[in-house]
Amino acid sequence: MSVHQTVITVSTEGSGTYEITDRIAAEVRRSGVSRGLVNIFCRHTSCSLVVFENADPSARADLEAWLDRQVPAGDPHFTHTAEGPDDMPSHIKMALTRTAESVPFADGRLLLGAWQGVFLWEHRTSPHQRGVVVTVLGE
Amino acid sequence: MSVHQTVITVSTEGSGTYEITDRIAAEVRRSGVSRGLVNIFCRHTSCSLVVFENADPSARADLEAWLDRQVPAGDPHFTHTAEGPDDMPSHIKMALTRTAESVPFADGRLLLGAWQGVFLWEHRTSPHQRGVVVTVLGE
Amino acid sequence: MSVHQTVITVSTEGSGTYEITDRIAAEVRRSGVSRGLVNIFCRHTSCSLVVFENADPSARADLEAWLDRQVPAGDPHFTHTAEGPDDMPSHIKMALTRTAESVPFADGRLLLGAWQGVFLWEHRTSPHQRGVVVTVLGE
Repeated sequence: MSVHQTVITVSTEGSGTYEITDRIAAEVRRSGVSRGLVNIFCRHTSCSLVVFENADPSARADLEAWLDRQVPAGDPHFTHTAEGPDDMPSHIKMALTRTAESVPFADGRLLLGAWQGVFLWEHRTSPHQRGVVVTVLGE
Repeated sequence: MSVHQTVITVSTEGSGTYEITDRIAAEVRRSGVSRGLVNIFCRHTSCSLVVFENADPSARADLEAWLDRQVPAGDPHFTHTAEGPDDMPSHIKMALTRTAESVPFADGRLLLGAWQGVFLWEHRTSPHQRGVVVTVLGE
Repeated sequence: MSVHQTVITVSTEGSGTYEITDRIAAEVRRSGVSRGLVNIFCRHTSCSLVVFENADPSARADLEAWLDRQVPAGDPHFTHTAEGPDDMPSHIKMALTRTAESVPFADGRLLLGAWQGVFLWEHRTSPHQRGVVVTVLGE
């Protein structure tokens, strides 16, 4: 068993989903570990992770629009508004999705399903540099 | 430390929660690993996993009905509708629950609480064969 | 590689978020493991875990109030009400957040972001003793 750990940076250009599947797969290959689990951890409270449909962009557009309707920017109930109308929605959207994802792999390849991709979901409207810790555990 | 990995198939007969606790427990026993973590990974984007109350079926019925009200089939906002009115809701429901779950174990037994079970949650209305990767990490 | 596993008890005094970051960090230090992953597993179906903003309490207050509005106590749709009006909401709120969280660590220290904390989220109104399994995997 061995552990390999790196931090990757994801550049975002406003709210939306950014696919990072290839970067995660590359870290697994680079680790030289054949079989195990890769953990992906988002070090932020205003963006999150999700494994989602990566074939047809309309699925992600509908997902993002649905969540915007549930957690609208500028909701007058919110008191935590120092960073603007997208501040509190970004935290709630993060809490409803995931800070960490784990994906199994074998023969050095991710065991994702045919339609699955790993996405960083930026919830802020302005560009950000996001740090994601990738930890490979296996043998 | 060692890694054991298998893929199990879960047959679903329409939307709802299907308990897989016993199958996960069996994989842990079969691995011969005494103590560690078992990761359960759903290889699909229209079903998901959840650890939930497994004693009284009314809790699951209420959960499913609540989520149906939040993400109604046929919502006219949706554009990703090629596979029918339950297509986009199935993706959103998946994103709100979990693709992967991890459960600790000791002495070869899952450390679930008294009322917890592991469920595959089918979000499509038609029957499916669902692949779930079970990865046992431990010593 | 080694595995360290302990169960910690979290005392709650009504619904709300209870930070457990320092207790998780202490278990990692106590394990003597330098680098890897710590898995935190909540053994209950009416409380959950979340990694969230830990600097300004207004963010947590807004999060809790938002979720209360989505899943109101006493919703007449609910049939699973044996333990009172907060019974079914507590299960739904748990299903929307997390049973397990995983946090990477290096040099014996959690790799959380600057604003992240680990919280147990009590969804019941009465006080409880909550069991949380902490599993440290690494080398």
